[in-house]
Amino acid sequence: MPYYIGDVATSNELSKYIVRPPGVFKDGHNIDIHLQHEVQHIDAKAREIQVRDIENDHTVIVPYDTMIVSTGARSRRLNIPGDDAPNVFYLKELSDAEKIKRFIDESKPSRAVTLGAGFIGLEMAEAFGYLGIQNTIIYRGLKPMGRLGDDISEMIIEEVEEHGVRFIQDASASSFTLDADGMVISVVTDKGEYPTDMVLISVGVIPNTEIAKAAGLALGESGALSVDDRQRTSNTHIYAAGDCCEVRHRITNKPVFIPLGDLANKQGWVAGENAAGGDITYPGVLGSAHFKVFDLEVGFTGLSCMEAEKEGIDHIAQTIEGRSKPRLYPGSSLIRVCLVAERKTRRLLGAQIAGRDGAAHRINIIAAALAGGLTIDDIVDLDLAYAPPFTPTIDPILTAARVLQKDMG
Amino acid sequence: MPYYIGDVATSNELSKYIVRPPGVFKDGHNIDIHLQHEVQHIDAKAREIQVRDIENDHTVIVPYDTMIVSTGARSRRLNIPGDDAPNVFYLKELSDAEKIKRFIDESKPSRAVTLGAGFIGLEMAEAFGYLGIQNTIIYRGLKPMGRLGDDISEMIIEEVEEHGVRFIQDASASSFTLDADGMVISVVTDKGEYPTDMVLISVGVIPNTEIAKAAGLALGESGALSVDDRQRTSNTHIYAAGDCCEVRHRITNKPVFIPLGDLANKQGWVAGENAAGGDITYPGVLGSAHFKVFDLEVGFTGLSCMEAEKEGIDHIAQTIEGRSKPRLYPGSSLIRVCLVAERKTRRLLGAQIAGRDGAAHRINIIAAALAGGLTIDDIVDLDLAYAPPFTPTIDPILTAARVLQKDMG
Repeated sequence: MPYYIGDVATSNELSKYIVRPPGVFKDGHNIDIHLQHEVQHIDAKAREIQVRDIENDHTVIVPYDTMIVSTGARSRRLNIPGDDAPNVFYLKELSDAEKIKRFIDESKPSRAVTLGAGFIGLEMAEAFGYLGIQNTIIYRGLKPMGRLGDDISEMIIEEVEEHGVRFIQDASASSFTLDADGMVISVVTDKGEYPTDMVLISVGVIPNTEIAKAAGLALGESGALSVDDRQRTSNTHIYAAGDCCEVRHRITNKPVFIPLGDLANKQGWVAGENAAGGDITYPGVLGSAHFKVFDLEVGFTGLSCMEAEKEGIDHIAQTIEGRSKPRLYPGSSLIRVCLVAERKTRRLLGAQIAGRDGAAHRINIIAAALAGGLTIDDIVDLDLAYAPPFTPTIDPILTAARVLQKDMG
Repeated sequence: MPYYIGDVATSNELSKYIVRPPGVFKDGHNIDIHLQHEVQHIDAKAREIQVRDIENDHTVIVPYDTMIVSTGARSRRLNIPGDDAPNVFYLKELSDAEKIKRFIDESKPSRAVTLGAGFIGLEMAEAFGYLGIQNTIIYRGLKPMGRLGDDISEMIIEEVEEHGVRFIQDASASSFTLDADGMVISVVTDKGEYPTDMVLISVGVIPNTEIAKAAGLALGESGALSVDDRQRTSNTHIYAAGDCCEVRHRITNKPVFIPLGDLANKQGWVAGENAAGGDITYPGVLGSAHFKVFDLEVGFTGLSCMEAEKEGIDHIAQTIEGRSKPRLYPGSSLIRVCLVAERKTRRLLGAQIAGRDGAAHRINIIAAALAGGLTIDDIVDLDLAYAPPFTPTIDPILTAARVLQKDMG
């Protein structure tokens, strides 16, 4: 959606962003889709749901043998007075993207304030930049993606600032100033007031679990639905998949709430197969993700130092700066690699990589290494392909591993 | 070197391509470097070498405690009459690159014939293309990189032909036609005669092992030096590293001759450490490599079908075509992934990937997976990062694994 809004994507027809339009389900798979129908109540004992047909204002009871809850998540609100103004936006649904784009097209804002510096906030910083809209990011923490460590997050700040974005750290919005038409004209924070033509609130999502909770389904600590490795909830007949449920982290073996599209997709496969009588398991996640902000690529997988710390794992980390490819090949640039390993077992726990040229792709090398339970010594020994258009003779990942290996003794 | 010749690299000062000039060794590491000195004889019993100082035409005997043989490899010759003409070139040493560049600068050839379609032949096809030199590749086999399988090699042919290169399959050069000045003006093959202004012979390399062989060191089947996993030759006091020796393939556990720069670099570390009294091992290779020809990226690692076949491994393979990233993101393009797995153990044996956008980087995901001994089921379960600028929701590698998993039952 940020690429749709920022005119980066090759189409501005929103319907093209729907991977599977409703008709595909019926025609291709004989699945009945009921849009504009709201499930109001789950009677888990009777195995039936109460559904309201919104268009016809009509309520029916639908029985089920097995059910999959995939109610997703919604944007977290800040409950700041004035946040319902027409120029305050969230970005979660396609309809949000449509609203933002229409507002930009029609009102031609010259300034935007973003609250939050996660994926959406940063990807939208790029979109605002491409559209020539002066963007100010107001962030509660000190560094964007702060849990990744300063080595990486300072690169993000440099990149957005180089592209004209103002990044206000350690600040929190307390109210919006409205004009006579009820439009936000400035954001008031404990670090000053920021005049603006529009506001984007991107401070995370919360899982839609109210209806499942009311039906007695167990929630995890995160507030998302607890599921087993077959995507089954605490009720034998009810599965769940996507942003409404937790996933197991493969390194810590603990449930976490990581609402990402690719994970939701894969959970859907597992829930669907099992709900239909199959028996497959979801392997859990490493928390792998990457994103682009202007020309900077950032990727991470597994545990960061901060997360290893929190888990009480005795770990050691090393950050090195290397080249994305040989110095004389065009586009060669600095790339920063941070590796985290468990001290005792020497097992790799995670990595963060940031740079301009292949940093994002490289994080998936580490994701595969984590899946194999490789140690730092195994990483040193990886036989990675080498060619000047893509990599230096010794990839920065290998250099980082070698330095960390030395540190570990 | 192809990037130096093709004016792709950011410098045309050849000295900049020398990673460590001789002075660095003396000043930085107190290592005496003797250039223009030819070792004529190794007396392994007496542990001394006979060295000729070429400039002063003077021969000395130098004793050693331990020795590292790193004599490299040289271009394979075809012994075709006329192949010593001044416009017939090889590309192995920096001096070769210098000669080719000088010839192109001074003689401004409009046509080049290349014999061979390996890394050098294909990378030089790109260089010739960028320089506006019409290139004809004459190849003995049917497909370039033929051992990779038709799915991949046909993409290479399409790519070079789209860029104006003539690719003559199944042809072999028998002689060169010379003009009065002794310059090659055409290449005569069993598939016709090809007029040209210059010839590049790139038909592989052969290891420089004559002197080591004369000293009684054991050679492998390939003709390169046999070494153990500590890079030690058959003589306790002599180590070897680089293009003159074999390496162990990690999948087959057999010695192979894979003369690549990054492997040579890593072998050097191991040989050096052990020759100095250390005890480290070289982990062997997967045969990982990637290269670029015009806009096509090709990567491979582990065993291809042809290699698995040759090793008598009961295997199953699947090639799929997917997208490098979501259809609507600029630069989204087709990417072909071929995965090979052992039927019985379901273990991944190797992969080839070709495409325009991240194909090369992706092969290193597989290299890491092979290092961990992952099965096809593990590949299906990889938690790879997803973001539209880099990857589709489900990466083509995962799609290929899923299809192969289905095939395997």
